[in-house]
Amino acid sequence: MDTKELSLKKHYDWNGKIEVVSRCKIDSMEDLAVAYTPGVAQPCLAIAEDKELSWKLTRRNNLVAVVTDGSAVLGLGDIGPEAGMPVMEGKCVLFKEFADVDAFPICIDSQDVDTIVDTVALISKSFGGINLEDIAAPRCFEIEEKLKQRCDIPVFHDDQHGTAIVVAAALLNAMKVTGRKMGTAKIVINGAGAAGTAIAKLLLQMNFGSITMCDRYGIVCAGEDWLTDAQEKLAQITNLEHQKGLLADAVKGADIFIGVSRPGMLTTEMVSTMAKDSIVLAMANPTPEIMPEDAKKGGAKVVGTGRSDYPNQINNVLIFPGLFKGVLSVRAKQITEDMKISAAYALAGIISDEELSPEYIIPNALNKEVAKKVAEAVAKTAVDAQIVK
Amino acid sequence: MDTKELSLKKHYDWNGKIEVVSRCKIDSMEDLAVAYTPGVAQPCLAIAEDKELSWKLTRRNNLVAVVTDGSAVLGLGDIGPEAGMPVMEGKCVLFKEFADVDAFPICIDSQDVDTIVDTVALISKSFGGINLEDIAAPRCFEIEEKLKQRCDIPVFHDDQHGTAIVVAAALLNAMKVTGRKMGTAKIVINGAGAAGTAIAKLLLQMNFGSITMCDRYGIVCAGEDWLTDAQEKLAQITNLEHQKGLLADAVKGADIFIGVSRPGMLTTEMVSTMAKDSIVLAMANPTPEIMPEDAKKGGAKVVGTGRSDYPNQINNVLIFPGLFKGVLSVRAKQITEDMKISAAYALAGIISDEELSPEYIIPNALNKEVAKKVAEAVAKTAVDAQIVK
Repeated sequence: MDTKELSLKKHYDWNGKIEVVSRCKIDSMEDLAVAYTPGVAQPCLAIAEDKELSWKLTRRNNLVAVVTDGSAVLGLGDIGPEAGMPVMEGKCVLFKEFADVDAFPICIDSQDVDTIVDTVALISKSFGGINLEDIAAPRCFEIEEKLKQRCDIPVFHDDQHGTAIVVAAALLNAMKVTGRKMGTAKIVINGAGAAGTAIAKLLLQMNFGSITMCDRYGIVCAGEDWLTDAQEKLAQITNLEHQKGLLADAVKGADIFIGVSRPGMLTTEMVSTMAKDSIVLAMANPTPEIMPEDAKKGGAKVVGTGRSDYPNQINNVLIFPGLFKGVLSVRAKQITEDMKISAAYALAGIISDEELSPEYIIPNALNKEVAKKVAEAVAKTAVDAQIVK
Repeated sequence: MDTKELSLKKHYDWNGKIEVVSRCKIDSMEDLAVAYTPGVAQPCLAIAEDKELSWKLTRRNNLVAVVTDGSAVLGLGDIGPEAGMPVMEGKCVLFKEFADVDAFPICIDSQDVDTIVDTVALISKSFGGINLEDIAAPRCFEIEEKLKQRCDIPVFHDDQHGTAIVVAAALLNAMKVTGRKMGTAKIVINGAGAAGTAIAKLLLQMNFGSITMCDRYGIVCAGEDWLTDAQEKLAQITNLEHQKGLLADAVKGADIFIGVSRPGMLTTEMVSTMAKDSIVLAMANPTPEIMPEDAKKGGAKVVGTGRSDYPNQINNVLIFPGLFKGVLSVRAKQITEDMKISAAYALAGIISDEELSPEYIIPNALNKEVAKKVAEAVAKTAVDAQIVK
């Protein structure tokens, strides 16, 4: 049975991948009176007097809402709120298994920006954080921005920022292993959607080097008539030489290729036009932009993909559980650029210089030390910046 | 330490009364690939093709949303969404402990009917049922009605219908124990809000007898200028003799007093004007409309309250866990009057005629057999009426 068949079968067996359990036993009338009426009036009154106490007396201190509209689920596209649910439940499982963070899936039956923003804001008072998931670009940018304004808890679109942080961590080590200096890399990102945009912004912030973005009609260049508003903005901070053309033109002489696009977009021949000892992160799922063996043939020294059956798996699970753990542990009011950057350095730093190799630039997705280290780094950065409650 | 102090202390210790756990272990790369990407694409696609499968492949088959706007929490009034949360978490605990139903609290930061309806409808696709809780009357009537139209899952306002069902069950046995025949009782309900209204409707439906409602300005009588719209409607089906006056006038000669109002509303003297061997259910919390010993002095034969330190505790926990369990087990499309009535008979029937006494008309709140029996009865009624999916 292949993974997909097995997954379907297992999903029937599980009958739901998450479950809501009680943290208090109800075995006596006193238990009932203390956990529920009449005793429960006391914590209610305490919170009514001081809303801050909702962080002590209810579960929001460890609780993240995993929110989607089902519009961009995996590579499956717009499959709606019911069909997106297995992914959201899966995400909640990973939050719990990797960082002991409680997460609950909320699928919203609308694709209107303001409706989604209103719905999330209206239910946000009992959560500690909002993880947006699988919402299509460019809508996701606006939703995240508006929610940050509306909510007094951190909001994080994992497809954007989670991906960007893991890519940044992998590249920190890949630069080291190929003897490159920060600030010098010529980087091409194929796919100027949610993930590609966030990756570009974070890598620029971290001073990796210069970036050229490509999308389905070629290089993102200011003035091209096919650019979306978001891509027009991207064109102001990338491709400063105003190069025009296709992906094949962009990768010539590039140090790093980052694919968040579609299978088969990069060929061995294209890799062979890149700089010596190039770095290829081909993350289309389940089939990457180029298979690792083909990238190697073209001269790539470091290759990463989204796959677990090849070295260097770029997997968001390395970030989101630990990141939210850290955020919740110190009640950070938001997730800043500095916190994302510290998460990237913490993740990269888990591999020592001695262990580092072209086949090992990023920790294994199952490494349960990762979330702890990421949480500590994120919490420290938030505390140092005094953006905690 | 009294119950309230102990409750506050325990709430600090619990740090949240519920928790979201995983139903699948993630110990290997295969586990990850099956529960999450890439395997999870398969159940997603299956649901996208047939939305019905969301009831098999995700947790909604056992999942209830416990929804409030925090506007009528316990007897505390409008304390807002954060402060209502301890009650909602408590409710979720009881769902799990008594019927193994997963429930998750949703507190909505609005008191506008349409905003609340929109919010709940928009997130309803991943739940199996909606339990409304602690929403003020008369708003709660409209919200429930509109949600029933909008959602394709059952919607149930527990403060109304849960209370009504438990009261009906208690009265079925109280009538028996005091030798009364169905259809003959003269009933007075003090408190014409959400609970009182639902009790009146259900008791009429079940043919207990005639009903007179009282509220803070006296007897609810058609044409009185202080009636709300909902009370005006009530006046069409209750108090058919158009009696005017105060509660003291209403209870003269009455067989049954039902209090869902405020402490101290009923006196021993008023009870002494009721029919012989009267029945008093005084459910104001934590101090009833009359203390049991005082009701007994006035001649009441059966007395019930909301309190656990006296016999005959009228507690909603006897109904909502089992009711939803039954509803979910057969995927009932709605919760009909017949289903509520069968729940009342099932609950009353747990006490055999031999066990029945004035001090024992309703099962103990901790009796874990109750939810099973109620679930079976509700499920059977739904199946017989062919209102299941």
